[in-house]
Amino acid sequence: MSPHKETEDGSKAVDLSHHLNSKSNARHPSPLKDIIKFMSIEGMVSLAGGLPHPSLFPIHKAIITASNPLNDGTSELDLSNDKNEISLADFLQYGTGSGNPKLRKWCHEFTELVHLPLYDNFEILLHPGNTNAWSKVVGLLCEDGDHILCESYTYPSSQAYWIPLGNIAAPVAVDEQGIRDDALQQVLKNWDFDHPGIDRPHVLYLVSVGSNPTGATMGPERRQRIYDICVQYDIIIVEDDPYFFLQYPEYSIETTAKSTVTPNAEFLSSLAPSFLRYDYQGRVIRLESFSKTISPGLRLGYFVANPMFTERLLRATEVETQDPSGLSQVVTLGLLQQWGLDGYLLWLQNLRIEYQNRRDWIIKAIAQHFTLKPAAQVTEVLTDEGLVALIGSVPIFSFVPPTGGMFIWACFYLGNNPMFQKMQSDSTIEDPEQCFAQQLWESLAEELVLLTPGSYYHPWQGKDKVTTKARGASPETANFRLSFSMTTKEDMEVGIARLASVVKSSWKL
Amino acid sequence: MSPHKETEDGSKAVDLSHHLNSKSNARHPSPLKDIIKFMSIEGMVSLAGGLPHPSLFPIHKAIITASNPLNDGTSELDLSNDKNEISLADFLQYGTGSGNPKLRKWCHEFTELVHLPLYDNFEILLHPGNTNAWSKVVGLLCEDGDHILCESYTYPSSQAYWIPLGNIAAPVAVDEQGIRDDALQQVLKNWDFDHPGIDRPHVLYLVSVGSNPTGATMGPERRQRIYDICVQYDIIIVEDDPYFFLQYPEYSIETTAKSTVTPNAEFLSSLAPSFLRYDYQGRVIRLESFSKTISPGLRLGYFVANPMFTERLLRATEVETQDPSGLSQVVTLGLLQQWGLDGYLLWLQNLRIEYQNRRDWIIKAIAQHFTLKPAAQVTEVLTDEGLVALIGSVPIFSFVPPTGGMFIWACFYLGNNPMFQKMQSDSTIEDPEQCFAQQLWESLAEELVLLTPGSYYHPWQGKDKVTTKARGASPETANFRLSFSMTTKEDMEVGIARLASVVKSSWKL
Repeated sequence: MSPHKETEDGSKAVDLSHHLNSKSNARHPSPLKDIIKFMSIEGMVSLAGGLPHPSLFPIHKAIITASNPLNDGTSELDLSNDKNEISLADFLQYGTGSGNPKLRKWCHEFTELVHLPLYDNFEILLHPGNTNAWSKVVGLLCEDGDHILCESYTYPSSQAYWIPLGNIAAPVAVDEQGIRDDALQQVLKNWDFDHPGIDRPHVLYLVSVGSNPTGATMGPERRQRIYDICVQYDIIIVEDDPYFFLQYPEYSIETTAKSTVTPNAEFLSSLAPSFLRYDYQGRVIRLESFSKTISPGLRLGYFVANPMFTERLLRATEVETQDPSGLSQVVTLGLLQQWGLDGYLLWLQNLRIEYQNRRDWIIKAIAQHFTLKPAAQVTEVLTDEGLVALIGSVPIFSFVPPTGGMFIWACFYLGNNPMFQKMQSDSTIEDPEQCFAQQLWESLAEELVLLTPGSYYHPWQGKDKVTTKARGASPETANFRLSFSMTTKEDMEVGIARLASVVKSSWKL
Repeated sequence: MSPHKETEDGSKAVDLSHHLNSKSNARHPSPLKDIIKFMSIEGMVSLAGGLPHPSLFPIHKAIITASNPLNDGTSELDLSNDKNEISLADFLQYGTGSGNPKLRKWCHEFTELVHLPLYDNFEILLHPGNTNAWSKVVGLLCEDGDHILCESYTYPSSQAYWIPLGNIAAPVAVDEQGIRDDALQQVLKNWDFDHPGIDRPHVLYLVSVGSNPTGATMGPERRQRIYDICVQYDIIIVEDDPYFFLQYPEYSIETTAKSTVTPNAEFLSSLAPSFLRYDYQGRVIRLESFSKTISPGLRLGYFVANPMFTERLLRATEVETQDPSGLSQVVTLGLLQQWGLDGYLLWLQNLRIEYQNRRDWIIKAIAQHFTLKPAAQVTEVLTDEGLVALIGSVPIFSFVPPTGGMFIWACFYLGNNPMFQKMQSDSTIEDPEQCFAQQLWESLAEELVLLTPGSYYHPWQGKDKVTTKARGASPETANFRLSFSMTTKEDMEVGIARLASVVKSSWKL
C-alpha cells in the first residue's frame, strides 16, 4: 500500500513552485510580522504590537461537557485547566495565522500515525473549514480561466467559488471508485488536441472517500495509478477528505452483522489510504476537516502539504482570514488532549459504526419497497457494479452501496417510463432526461420526500455544455443523491415508501 | 449631527449595484440552498441535506465564567441553558452563511441604538473578523488593478490583501481628524488630469476612529463633508471601525481627572458618530468587530450595509468561509444576552476608561523624560496641533494625543540630528529620512524599546513611489507608531526612558 515508504524514507518534497499562480507569488509577509521576532528578546519593552489587553477579555474560564470516546457517557473538561497546559487567554488573543502550535503539533502527529506520509517535511496549517481551504487553494494555484480537473459529478460549492473567476471544469469520468485512471490519462494525453491553445490543467480536485455526490471511495491500486499519472503530467492533487474516517465494509444483501470496535491499529489498516501514502514528491494538498468528526460549527480543519505550499497559504491566511476561531481551537485541542490519540481513534471508530448503521438502514428500507438484485444479474442496466432496485421486473435505479461517506448515488433508468418516452419523442424538448428528472423531483417533493437532483453536481464547463447529451452522460438515465446521515430509521422507511409509491405511479407499474 | 434623520426617515437605500465588480455579479446562490426551503414543509422526509447527525457531536454543554459588565466580578453562564433559548447543538451544526438569526437580530438592534442609521433597510451579515470582511469587500467592489482611496498612512494588512491583485493606493492627505475633505475633493477633481486613462476610484477605505496608525478620530463636520463628496463622486465608503467604542476625551496636560462611568445615553452621545449617521443612500459599508470589545480570538464581527451589498457578500460568504465559528457565535450571543444592551454598553464604557488610562500613562511617561509643549507654541515644528516633545529647546517629535484607539503617531523632527545631517549631504543616499529612521529604529531595538516604523504604513502606489520625497511627505521628518494597549504602566515608563536616552545620544544632546 505504500511502496515508496521503505526506499524513499526521509526524502523531502521536490520543488513544485512553478505551480503557484501570479497572485500567490506576489504575496509578501506583512511587515508587522517582522517585528514579532524582536518582541521575544529578553527585557524588550514593546510599544509595537496593537493587541488588546488580555485583562480586558470578559471570558475567564470555560468548562464543556464532552462525550467519552465511545459516546457511552460524558466527562467535564476544563479548558483553562493547568493540567492540560492550555491557557484560555492565549486562544482569546490574536494568533499568528498558522494556528495554535500545540494543536498543529497534534495534527502533525496524527497525520504521521494515520497517513504515514512518504516525505518528511510536510507541514500543517490550520484553516476555518474545507470551504475556505479550497478557496485558498484555488487562490494559490489557479489563474483565472484555468481548467480544473474534477470528478464528472462533483461537489457544487467547490465550483461555486471558481465559476465567477472564469475557471472551467475539466471533468474526468468516474466509476464506483471515483475518478478512472484510464479516463484521466485520456483527458491529459488528448488535451492539446481537444483544447488547442488552452493550457493543460495542473490541478485535480477530488473527494476520494465517500465522494459527494457519488459516494465512491478510491482503493489503493487506483490511487497509485492516479498518482503516477499526476507525476507524469505534473498535476497537483487536492484531496478534499472530510469523510476519510467514515469508511465502511462492503454492504452485503445477506448478512446483517453490525461492525464493532476493533483495536485501533486494525481500524487504521482497514481504511483506504489517503494520497499521502503515495506522495513521494509533495504534490498532494490534503484538506482535512473536523466538521464531520467533531462538529461543523467549529469551522476548523487543516491543510497537510509541502512547506512551499503551506508557506504561501499562510501568506493568504494572514490577509484573508487570520487564525481560525480561538474558541474552536481551544475546544478541539482540549477534547483531543482529553481523549488522547487512542481515544480519538475510538471516537472515530464509533462514528463510522453509527454512519454505517445509517447506510444499512437506508438500503434495508430500499429492500422493503423494491426488489434488490446484484447489477451483474440485471441485463437491462448499464453497470455490473452494485445493486439494482426493481419493481416487478422493471429496473428503476441502480446504486453502489457506498463504503464511505453519507450518500447513495442513484442512477434512475428512464427507458420504461411512459412520460419519459413521450418527452423523448417531443422534438421541442432539448434534454428529455433533465426535463423528466425535474418533474420526478417535483412529484417526489409533493409527496413529501426530498432527494437532491443529480444535475446539481454537473461540472460547469462554460455555458454551452448543460444537456445530458452534451455532458456525454448515459442516455435515458438521471441521477439523484440520497443522504443517510441525518434521517431517522423510521423516516428513512417512510421516505423510501413514498419514493416507491411515486415511482409506481409515474412508471405505471 | 444627523441632519437627514428627520427628513429622510423611513427611506431606503438607493440603487448602487453599478459598484459591484464582475466577479461579484457572476456569483449565483448554491443550488443546494434552493432545497432548504422545501425542507421546512410539514411532514417532509428529507434525504437531501448532507449534514452530520447532531447526536454524534461530542460537545453537550458549555459553561463559561464571564465578567460582569463593570468587570468587577464574574458570573457563570450556561450556553445551553433553556432560559436563554440558546441551543448549543444549533451552533455546532452547519449554519446558513449569514450567521445565527438571534445574534444578527441583536446586532441589528444594537446598530439602531448606537448609530441611528438614516435608511431603514440596512442589513447585518456576520463575518469572521475585519481582516476577512475587508477581503470580501475588495472582492465585492474592486476590479483587479483598481485604485483604492485610503488615508495617506494606512493599515498595512488591508493593503497586503490587494497588492497581489494589482490594486493601487490612491492616498488622501490626513490631519488630526483623518482624511481631509479638501484633499479628497482635490484627488477626485483632478483624477482624470493626474491619471489619464485610469478609472477614478470608487471605494474609500478608512479607519475613522483611532485610525491605525495615526490615532486620528474624525469629527461630525468632517464626516458630513467627506460623505457629501462621496455622494458627489459616487464613492462607496468602507468604514473599518474596530475602535469605535474606544473614544476618549481630549488629553489635557494640566488635569489628570480620570473618566468615570456615566449613563449610557450620555456615553453614546459623547462618541463621534459613525458614517451611518450621514448615509441616506446606503453607500457606507461598516466593518464591525468584536475583536477589541470582547476578544480577537473569537474571529467574529459583522457587516452593516445596504441589502444589495449584504446579499452579494452572503454569496461570497457561502463559498469562501461559511458562517463564523458557531462556538464564537454562541459565546458572544450568550454574553450579550446575559449583559443585555445596557450591560454591554457599561462594559464598553469600562473598556474605554481602561484604554484611556493607558493613553494617559504613556503621555505622562513622555512628559517625565521630555518637555511637553503645545505645538502652537513651538515655531520649529510643522503643525499647530497636539503636543511637541522637546529635549532642552530641541523639538524631537510631535504627536496629537489620540481621542480614540490604541496608538500614538509620533512625527520625529530630524533636522537637528547630526547623523541625519550627514546623510542628507551624502548624495549616494536616495532617501535620507527613511535611511535615518531605519537606523534609529535599530538603535532603539538594541536598547530594548520597540516601536513600529512609520514606513510600514505607507500606501502602496506601485513600485516607483517609495521615497519620502516621492510620497510628498514633509522633508526632515519620520514617523513611528507607539502602541499603548498592551504595555504595563511601569514598562511604558521604562520604554520611554530608553527612547529618551537613545534620542539624547543620537541627537548629541
